[in-house]
Amino acid sequence: MNYAVILAGGTGTRFWPFSRELEPKQFMQIIGDKSLLQDTIKRIDGLVLPKNIFIVTNFKYLYEVKHQVAAFRISEANIILEPQGKNTAPAIGLCAQLISRRDKDATLIVLPSDHFIKNINKFRGCLKKAISLASHGLLVTLGIKPQNPSTGYGYIKTGLKKNGYFSAEKFLEKPDLAKAKAYFKDKRFYWNSGMFVWKASTFLEETRKYLPKLHILLSMIRSVDDIEKVWPKIDPISVDYGIMERSSKIALIPAPFYWTDLGSWDAMNALLPKDKSGNVIHADCLEVDSSGVSVFSRGARLISLIGVKDLIIVDTPDALLVCDKHKSQDVKKVVDILKSNKRKEQIAHTTEKRPWGSFTVLQNSDGFKIKLIEISPKKRLSLQRHAKRAEHWVVVSGCARVTTGFKKRLVHSNHSIYVPIGTKHRLENPGVIPLKIVEVQTGSYVEEDDIERFDDDFKR
Amino acid sequence: MNYAVILAGGTGTRFWPFSRELEPKQFMQIIGDKSLLQDTIKRIDGLVLPKNIFIVTNFKYLYEVKHQVAAFRISEANIILEPQGKNTAPAIGLCAQLISRRDKDATLIVLPSDHFIKNINKFRGCLKKAISLASHGLLVTLGIKPQNPSTGYGYIKTGLKKNGYFSAEKFLEKPDLAKAKAYFKDKRFYWNSGMFVWKASTFLEETRKYLPKLHILLSMIRSVDDIEKVWPKIDPISVDYGIMERSSKIALIPAPFYWTDLGSWDAMNALLPKDKSGNVIHADCLEVDSSGVSVFSRGARLISLIGVKDLIIVDTPDALLVCDKHKSQDVKKVVDILKSNKRKEQIAHTTEKRPWGSFTVLQNSDGFKIKLIEISPKKRLSLQRHAKRAEHWVVVSGCARVTTGFKKRLVHSNHSIYVPIGTKHRLENPGVIPLKIVEVQTGSYVEEDDIERFDDDFKR
Repeated sequence: MNYAVILAGGTGTRFWPFSRELEPKQFMQIIGDKSLLQDTIKRIDGLVLPKNIFIVTNFKYLYEVKHQVAAFRISEANIILEPQGKNTAPAIGLCAQLISRRDKDATLIVLPSDHFIKNINKFRGCLKKAISLASHGLLVTLGIKPQNPSTGYGYIKTGLKKNGYFSAEKFLEKPDLAKAKAYFKDKRFYWNSGMFVWKASTFLEETRKYLPKLHILLSMIRSVDDIEKVWPKIDPISVDYGIMERSSKIALIPAPFYWTDLGSWDAMNALLPKDKSGNVIHADCLEVDSSGVSVFSRGARLISLIGVKDLIIVDTPDALLVCDKHKSQDVKKVVDILKSNKRKEQIAHTTEKRPWGSFTVLQNSDGFKIKLIEISPKKRLSLQRHAKRAEHWVVVSGCARVTTGFKKRLVHSNHSIYVPIGTKHRLENPGVIPLKIVEVQTGSYVEEDDIERFDDDFKR
Repeated sequence: MNYAVILAGGTGTRFWPFSRELEPKQFMQIIGDKSLLQDTIKRIDGLVLPKNIFIVTNFKYLYEVKHQVAAFRISEANIILEPQGKNTAPAIGLCAQLISRRDKDATLIVLPSDHFIKNINKFRGCLKKAISLASHGLLVTLGIKPQNPSTGYGYIKTGLKKNGYFSAEKFLEKPDLAKAKAYFKDKRFYWNSGMFVWKASTFLEETRKYLPKLHILLSMIRSVDDIEKVWPKIDPISVDYGIMERSSKIALIPAPFYWTDLGSWDAMNALLPKDKSGNVIHADCLEVDSSGVSVFSRGARLISLIGVKDLIIVDTPDALLVCDKHKSQDVKKVVDILKSNKRKEQIAHTTEKRPWGSFTVLQNSDGFKIKLIEISPKKRLSLQRHAKRAEHWVVVSGCARVTTGFKKRLVHSNHSIYVPIGTKHRLENPGVIPLKIVEVQTGSYVEEDDIERFDDDFKR
């Protein structure tokens, strides 16, 4: 049987300020109406049964993954949570271990969740060929014919070709430009796509050989309940470095489809149609004498451009990026600085998703905070209490069931209710349309960490 | 006696998005802690008595002018309101007429309210010289030695020099670049600063000669009460075109101080100190490998720059400008487009000033609107009623006196009150600290024009 292992735990930062630590790239709709994760699942539709699709992520992204995979009939039990990120070898090994316990003969298709592929039929044909090679005990990797001397990808130097695949002579990390140019000229070199196909048994056997400590630890995991205690002991290592570089069973097959890892704003930009001045405008934008400019907005602001060239402009309610088109890989530098400065703009958007819906901070001032809260039908927040703030709620759409102290009542649209400091309370949407509430918090301290939870549907 | 006539009715658009139709350049703090209007008044301190300083503006700007001139002990009666803008000749003529009725021998110093001048002592010395020349019946204009071949200024070609001033041979409108270069090379050419000194009687006499219809209409104005009925009959015309180009009494004296009309973001930028990469950063900004960039912000957003050069970036909560440094004069083009599209971003900021304080629109959605309202001590809004919306008010700072229907009550911080649709109501700050209120409007229509006023301290 075929299984998919989709790696969806990464904190891709290259699309900041659209992507944030709490909303990484794989969950974003970048091209089309599906997220990259959803596109990844859709691409294997028919090749792998929904019950055999596993998604590796972590608790931070659990509710987003559940939400995004709901339409694909993937069971919640197939969402595997890593307590800590340990890079790709342990994540893949974990799935190989869990899956092989129920199906000794399982074939795994390992896919990153945040790449872009054009020509799905060729992709699927290629996977079928890989599955067939994997059945002979090979570790199959899909290699991408380089389209340019990119310094953004790892390379694989191939050896002999036999039986429709290449042997791998060497795995090479992201090169400098001079090396990349040499690799690009040499027909033996391929980009390392991070897509692999192998039997669970082959992978575990190679793990036993090359990463024996990991193999022992993985063998202690008999069900997901064991992950928590084993995981902290595992050393982080990538599958490329830990297995692929060392194994003699590598088979590279050239990918016959268009692929990009969408590693930067510019990589994404390259995929989008341009107007006659070479501009890509996805915003409320007024442009005068500008060319080669791409504007992406998640806010409502008017953006006006005068006489500018070759820029990428990304606007959100709390952060703006203005970047030279050819330097978008340096977004990483900005994110690193924001991270070390503990800036909230790196962590979350002003609109934050929650398992029960979302909220948007409209104003955060001394002594008060204003939020717009949206609660999905039939969902409720935790029963909670705040030590330092009171809350005023005005229902602007839908109907709320509100608990304050021992009282429960329905609060309809255009009505309001007051929650004094220190009162246990709960907000619930008993209806079938989204409930929207304006919340005005007042108090000496109005931050998220002033919360005491007594009961929570989402085990927080 | 010396009088000042300060022209403060213009709708300067060059500093969009900081300037808006309702908040033009003259009221902005561009350099230092005073607005350009306040700097203009401060520059003549001691030369003209406060009771002799007249400010010409219109009703739209009345409360802003009152607010800005409060510290200068200028009487409200000295704020002259034009019912419609008629360009400079009628505005100056109006003041000449009103002032000469009380002081036949008055000397007028005519000053735009939105220019920048360095070296105030030289400016004052120059004015004194101009006043002395004006006493001989001359129309004195201050000419600026061109610093570059600017196409942004009108030019004056001087003739003979005698008794410390030049005669004017020709007034020239803003030239194209070729002409500007020729003017710049020729030492006889000066920039037309728009600053004039003359006796009211001289000016009115020249008006009688060259603009006889205007003279007749002005002579019908015996007090400010007459303006309203005369003004619509007046044809708009500039003082340069109507008087200066035709009169034989012109005396140009070269200005010995640094002057700019601050006609663009770049002109302002030129005045500001740069960091070692040539950047001017007045914002929460994270800059990587950028140079020659100026960033001005009136919002709270983080602005990040990567590898960009020679840009002017201006950020506000509802509009962003990204402009090539050398094309900032084209801001006018953007404003013209916004005007013809009736965009609100051309008219007002999200924070709008009112005679009683200000309000900020935080969210404007279908069926509801959220505002943060700030009411100055001892001020109150009009007694009003809305046909299509209810209002929820939460007091977050200060104390409100609220009228709803026939009831009056005090609402303290952390308390709220509800105003149903169709209820007459009034909001008042009886205290001595600003009153801050979060207003949630709910209803099918939540725009500003749904208001019926019954009593208003500000005669709206």
